[in-house]
This record gives sequence, C-alpha cells and structure tokens, in this order.
Amino acid sequence: MVRGTTEREVIRRINAGLDRSGSDELIVEEPLEIRLDGHIVATTMRTPGHDFELAVGLCVGDGLLGGANVRRVRYCDGPCGPGDTTYNTVTVDTGHEAPVPTPRLGTVSSSCGLCGSTTLDELCLRLAPLDPLPGPLDAELVHRVTTDASDRAPLFQATGASHAAASFDMATGELDLVREDIGRHNAVDKVVGRMALDGHLPGTDKGLYVSGRASFEMVQKAWAGGFRALVAVSGPSALAVRTARTAGLCLIGFARSDRMNVYAPDPLPR
Amino acid sequence: MVRGTTEREVIRRINAGLDRSGSDELIVEEPLEIRLDGHIVATTMRTPGHDFELAVGLCVGDGLLGGANVRRVRYCDGPCGPGDTTYNTVTVDTGHEAPVPTPRLGTVSSSCGLCGSTTLDELCLRLAPLDPLPGPLDAELVHRVTTDASDRAPLFQATGASHAAASFDMATGELDLVREDIGRHNAVDKVVGRMALDGHLPGTDKGLYVSGRASFEMVQKAWAGGFRALVAVSGPSALAVRTARTAGLCLIGFARSDRMNVYAPDPLPR
Repeated sequence: MVRGTTEREVIRRINAGLDRSGSDELIVEEPLEIRLDGHIVATTMRTPGHDFELAVGLCVGDGLLGGANVRRVRYCDGPCGPGDTTYNTVTVDTGHEAPVPTPRLGTVSSSCGLCGSTTLDELCLRLAPLDPLPGPLDAELVHRVTTDASDRAPLFQATGASHAAASFDMATGELDLVREDIGRHNAVDKVVGRMALDGHLPGTDKGLYVSGRASFEMVQKAWAGGFRALVAVSGPSALAVRTARTAGLCLIGFARSDRMNVYAPDPLPR
Repeated sequence: MVRGTTEREVIRRINAGLDRSGSDELIVEEPLEIRLDGHIVATTMRTPGHDFELAVGLCVGDGLLGGANVRRVRYCDGPCGPGDTTYNTVTVDTGHEAPVPTPRLGTVSSSCGLCGSTTLDELCLRLAPLDPLPGPLDAELVHRVTTDASDRAPLFQATGASHAAASFDMATGELDLVREDIGRHNAVDKVVGRMALDGHLPGTDKGLYVSGRASFEMVQKAWAGGFRALVAVSGPSALAVRTARTAGLCLIGFARSDRMNVYAPDPLPR
C-alpha cells in the first residue's frame, strides 16, 4: 500500500451497469497545526508525511521567517506534557529570530483597500524581482517535466485524490524531488520546505511544477522560493499572470503532452 | 466574454511544435474579506460575483451562525467612510444574534489532541446525523447530474481554471443552481449561501455536486447544509468517508459517465 493511504474501505462500485462490492485505497487527511517559535501560524488539512518540510515551506512561502535561520523543527508535546508527542502539531524554531507572526485571520480590519493590487503590492515589498530568463523555456523540457512528474505520483495513482508538486532543473528538466498531498498548497510547501532544510533556496536554477491550477498563491510560493519558472498542468488566474509578470517568473499553464501556454514573462515582442 | 473572466491577455501558445502568439480568457481572482457582525471570520481568494452568497455560505458551513437569522448582507464601507464602498469586504449581519466568532488561527493552542478524530468529534457536537436515505442513489441520476453540471460551467469552459458546485433534486437529478469559482470551497459556499438566503436550508431533498475531490471540508459543508448526498467527480479522503458515514450522508466519488463509487453510507450488507 502506498504511503499516505489507509486501509482499503469497503465500497460499492457501479460500473456501466454492473454493481459489485469492492475495496479502495483512500488518501489520508489529517489536520496539522503549524507553529513558528511557538506561535500558531496555520492549521491545514494535509496528508501526513514530510510534515517538517510542510511547516518550513509554509513559513518560507508566507515570508514568515524574515531572513531568520531554521534551527530545529519538531513535533510538539501533547496535552500530557513532555514525552506525549502529538504528530499533528509541528513547530519551526528560529530561536525567536523570526518576527512574531501576526494572525492572518483576526478581528483587526484590513479593509483599507483589500484587493488583488494591494495583495500584489504587499508581495513586492518583501520579494525582489527575479533575474529574467536568458531565453524561452524549451517545450520538450516542459513536456519531460510533466510526464516524469505524473510517473512519480504513486499517491495519485493509488487514490486519484492528490496533487503533486516537484522541483526540476531548468537546464535539463530533470526532477529533483516530488511531493504529493491532498492539498495542492501543501505539496508545494513540502517541496519548498525540503529545499530550505537542505540549504537549496533560492532555487535560482530550478523550476517548480504543480499538477493543478496556477493561482495567485502558487505564484507567490514559487516567487518566495526563488524559482525561475512555474509549470502548471491547468490554467492560471489573471492575478497569477500579473504577479508572475511582476516577479519576472516564467509562467507556463496547460502544460500537456502536446501543448503549453506561456503566460509570463510577457512574451511580446518576441 | 464570460462573467468572472478578464480581458484576454497576450500569451504564446506552443502547440505540437507550432509556436504562435495569441490571447486567452483568464479567470479573475481577488481576495474577499468576510465578516460576521463586523468580526473578520475569513479572507479567501475568490472569483468575484455572488459574494453575498459566498459570505453566508461560509458562515453556514463553519457553523458560525449558531441558529441566528441573517438580517442583511452588505459590502463594507471603504477607508474613506460611508459612500466609499469596497467590493472586497462583505459583512453578514445577524444583529449580533450569532455568537462572537473566535479567530480560527491565533495564538491560542489547540494541541490537546488535534487530529481527524477530534475534528470529527467537534463536528458531531454541532451537527445531528442526517435521516438515512430510503434507498441507494440511482446511477443514471448521478450521471445526469455530472453531465448537466459540466454543461452549465461556462467559466470552466472559458478558462479551464475553475471548479463548479451544484445543488440537485434527489428524486429527479435536476440541477437547482450551479456556481463556479477558482476555489472549490467557494463554489460550494456560494450554493449553500444562495439556499440559505432563499430559506431553502436544510436541503433535505437535495444533493450537492462538486467537480473535484471530496475532502473532509466538502463533507462538512454538505452535512452543515443538510444535504442528503455529496457527489464528487474525483476521489474522497479517508476522513471524508468516515465523516460521511458518521453523518449518514451518501457519498459518491469518481462520478463519471460510465461509473461511480459509493463510499457512504457503508453499503454492506446490501
């Protein structure tokens, strides 16, 4: 059985008129509370596994580290104190070098102009534009990335209910690491977190692959990780395209076996 | 141009070796801040349109109303005061009959046993089990739902980057309303919110359709809306199956033209 799945549950399959009982391998989904120096920064439903990567990657993507180094990542003690480890609460420890995180949802108003433009403006305050690519991304390379990433997605093959993210070499298209999760955001965070823990950020010679859509947050995570390109199997949003063009990030959408769309950097004039 | 999309952006299409410039219709993605009686309860990236439904549906799904009636929904005043309406902040007004919401992310620890079981236990505290279905859901009916919902998804047809949710009649499979959004959760919230505003909740003779996976939160929203069935085009998580069985909710996954899997209620013995 693939890691991240649970016992086969009894189901009934109705298949072109044939009705029979059977079993199924289901993806595991559990909440994870993520803390930074003890402060809760997020609670996310995720597929257990690579939890430390997920926690670190989320902090990187949301710009929570503020340049601080990760000293240690660990599961928190459970309600019964030391020794009662809980595997659904992780804390990222920077020795309090990271700024104290502000709750993202609270009772403080943020109505002073909340919109896509201000969201993008806030991102520009903390992230510098990326170096422009020397040339367009090769279509063959992109197709290799998408094909290889599909081949290395056992969780999806077993459950049909997960997303994959991967980092790849911009020169060869070779995949460096692949992560799967029930959440698209989590899969990306796990890739970014692994690279952060290995000292491989920013990913200046790397691209990021996601098996789904390219939303604003996907572009934000790619930019924060210093990737040069984001390759998505589905389409991007207008704000994602605008953000990628601002960042200088190459954005590929609808990356399929025989076609792809290049949305950023603005490809005209050629 | 389809509502919820923006001006065609210039892109470069690379299609089986042919490289040409063109244009594309992109889905709009903007943040929406949702408040309940003035308290911020969520900020979500969404496709503008049906914002009041989204706000109300989120409050219903998260159990924030606590039995209170929605008196009014409105866009908040912008930073320049009355008359300066901001279209990215919505408040749901119950005349302070709803409980004061607690921030979902904060500095208060929730480590005392955070896991799928406690998450499900919390849900059981506020939601009663649904009445069991008189018989299994008809496969032909499910196929009609999925086919009709696909046909009524202009945003997806235009952009390839949206999810759809729909409510349908459990007896006939006829669709009542369909909503699309860049976020799967938002599309469902918009359906639930519309039904709440029309006084059509709980949806005791209705089913809920989603174009993607059936995660825990999808089942939670269906249960909170009082639907009898959740039909998902992709697979469910193990926690979603467990939750649906606890709720007495019929859960169909991989609902395709020629097959479907019945995950809940536990179909054995037949």
